[in-house]
Amino acid sequence: MVDFEQIFSERASKMERSEIREILKLIQQGDVISFAGGLPNPEAFPIEATKKIINENLDEMGEKVLQYGSTEGVNPLRKELAKLMRDRGMDVDHENILITHGSQQALDLLSKVLLNPGDKILVGSPTYLGATGAFKAFEGEMETVEVREDGMDMDLLDRKLRQMKVKGELPKFIYVVLTFQNPSGATMTAEKRERLLDIASKYDILIVEDSPYSHLRYEGEKMPHLMSMDTEERVVRLETFSKILAPGFRIAWMTGPEELIEKMVIAKQATDLCTNPFGQYVAYKYLSEGIMDEHLENIKELYNKKRLTMLDSMEEHFPDEVEWNRPEGGMFIWAELPKHVDTREMFEKAVDEKVAYVVGDAFYVDDGGNNTMRLNYTHSSEEEIKRGIKALSKVIKEEIEMAEKKEESPIAP
Amino acid sequence: MVDFEQIFSERASKMERSEIREILKLIQQGDVISFAGGLPNPEAFPIEATKKIINENLDEMGEKVLQYGSTEGVNPLRKELAKLMRDRGMDVDHENILITHGSQQALDLLSKVLLNPGDKILVGSPTYLGATGAFKAFEGEMETVEVREDGMDMDLLDRKLRQMKVKGELPKFIYVVLTFQNPSGATMTAEKRERLLDIASKYDILIVEDSPYSHLRYEGEKMPHLMSMDTEERVVRLETFSKILAPGFRIAWMTGPEELIEKMVIAKQATDLCTNPFGQYVAYKYLSEGIMDEHLENIKELYNKKRLTMLDSMEEHFPDEVEWNRPEGGMFIWAELPKHVDTREMFEKAVDEKVAYVVGDAFYVDDGGNNTMRLNYTHSSEEEIKRGIKALSKVIKEEIEMAEKKEESPIAP
Repeated sequence: MVDFEQIFSERASKMERSEIREILKLIQQGDVISFAGGLPNPEAFPIEATKKIINENLDEMGEKVLQYGSTEGVNPLRKELAKLMRDRGMDVDHENILITHGSQQALDLLSKVLLNPGDKILVGSPTYLGATGAFKAFEGEMETVEVREDGMDMDLLDRKLRQMKVKGELPKFIYVVLTFQNPSGATMTAEKRERLLDIASKYDILIVEDSPYSHLRYEGEKMPHLMSMDTEERVVRLETFSKILAPGFRIAWMTGPEELIEKMVIAKQATDLCTNPFGQYVAYKYLSEGIMDEHLENIKELYNKKRLTMLDSMEEHFPDEVEWNRPEGGMFIWAELPKHVDTREMFEKAVDEKVAYVVGDAFYVDDGGNNTMRLNYTHSSEEEIKRGIKALSKVIKEEIEMAEKKEESPIAP
Repeated sequence: MVDFEQIFSERASKMERSEIREILKLIQQGDVISFAGGLPNPEAFPIEATKKIINENLDEMGEKVLQYGSTEGVNPLRKELAKLMRDRGMDVDHENILITHGSQQALDLLSKVLLNPGDKILVGSPTYLGATGAFKAFEGEMETVEVREDGMDMDLLDRKLRQMKVKGELPKFIYVVLTFQNPSGATMTAEKRERLLDIASKYDILIVEDSPYSHLRYEGEKMPHLMSMDTEERVVRLETFSKILAPGFRIAWMTGPEELIEKMVIAKQATDLCTNPFGQYVAYKYLSEGIMDEHLENIKELYNKKRLTMLDSMEEHFPDEVEWNRPEGGMFIWAELPKHVDTREMFEKAVDEKVAYVVGDAFYVDDGGNNTMRLNYTHSSEEEIKRGIKALSKVIKEEIEMAEKKEESPIAP
């Protein structure tokens, strides 16, 4: 056999298996209640509507939905999406839109056309690790700025960029999830969004806003979209059907300046020729026939119940030492345990008690987050959520006690 | 706006729009008979069978086909594919199989995990330009060996590799399309396949065999699969459902050594998380319910008629100075005009006469092929094929006459 270690590229030699992926494999094997994944709930899939759309599509334009499509994406879908975005205050045309095979592919293509090895990208701390995975695969190097309850710290961002500019190392772009961030659930305020645009303008930097959850708001006031506030074509926006229709078609879209889209189309052509037209035409009908608006209400009702169930259970069972937030939408709650509790060390015990989460430090590029965890509430049933949170509380309490004992007697017998 | 020229990566700065793509756009605008694309015929799409499969899938496992899947691909499909390949003499397991979003993605991922900038890849001359596009996007550099009527010239390959070895520049892999090559239609004989394996073994090089057309044989004897002759796990094989089911799902598979597959799974995770499970489950049922075997007979019958119609029309109308081959399968015929005729110069005249082809030199990494063209016969109707070939013959005859006149009077008045 060929000695692959000898022929792998430098970027491949640095690639590591995703931790979350390994965790998910581990817990799939047992009867563990998982708050670890980021999966939509199958109950939220509009199976009957999808079936109807597909039968119609195959009857009316089977030769189109089963054929190759253009690399940009099929125009009927691009036009519907442009309309959707204009309705939400973003001044775009279908030429600004590229259909991608999941938002992950947009992150991959952005990296492909923007990153040379060693180029910097500015990300939050914590941040979505699928994004840093894509950037690392093209040997990008992450610089981080802390994410607060109301999003990335703008003072720190300004200071960090000033330092980077002095060193001649300004990042290629700032990557942010502004609304119901994965993993922290944090949402950036309108004022901070203005400030983010100002800062990006000052240093003349592109902003990549990944926005998979903005449609999933269960309470509170809608925030203005960064792209609708942007007067300088400085924002690239990623959205996906994975959370508002279903992930199984892998249909997402990226919106941005035409010059960037054009280059990405060339890159995508060498990457996969085109996103599957079959799924694109499902998404098209889902929008054009107005099914989404109605269906979104169902999803939101379903997820909000689960969210409240989890928050109530946490309130009831979690010890006082644990802090957590109360995101008004999205899919996750972020919990912070006492500093001396390591959620990674605690993980196996949790799995023994048949409950799982994602260890928070997985979302930190640098050190940090050792005492944090991400809890997903969309995928489990309400009964599972109650049972799982109760089990997790038990593990946390034991862990806190043990940690306290250790602190008290640093030299164990 | 951000100055993108300033921030594009080096690889992006080198990216160019595909010529074929531009040609296809041009001719889509008129009533041109196109022999240019490489599209399957919509008549070959099993629309009713697909509809039945999808309705069953949504009824029986809607929560699975609409959900995220694992990066390797969904196991039921991987297992069916492993079985299909074992039935064809290849000793593989589902762990050797990665489902990709079209074979183009396999080429992208192979490039991602194998190529550093400047690494060499050995390809045929001519060769499939989607492949060289993928390699170039990762700054790979092509070395070429001539493709004959019976495939790549093995003496030249041996000599080329010896030269490259002396320079310490052995290629990362040899890329070949052995059966009904795109663009030339050439098929490699069994003896030469043996020799290809011997040569690759001698220089210890990986072979990537792209095999989209091996199921589309209309006459003649089946050739042994390279992978079934390979005793050293030296062959990576790419196959696709695009030509045996439909391209609209973008489902393809790559088979290779587990160590390579594992690395590619990590790379794919950062690229698009997973191939759309919806399409994967369609492909799975298409195989497991035995629909493919029956349907392949329909496709072959349809395409063979078109192939014979085109060959007969060429025989009837093309001038004696033109030579062409008679591939026993696939989707293309390759024609060679007299040396002094430039098919690129001739192209606009052909479009004026409402017929299009792909200029052959597009498939040459180096110079060459200026007097050649690729003709696709699967997408047009038989009537269109007859009309198109007649129109093309007229253009060719005029071009030959003109070229001859030029030759006779080099100093024009």
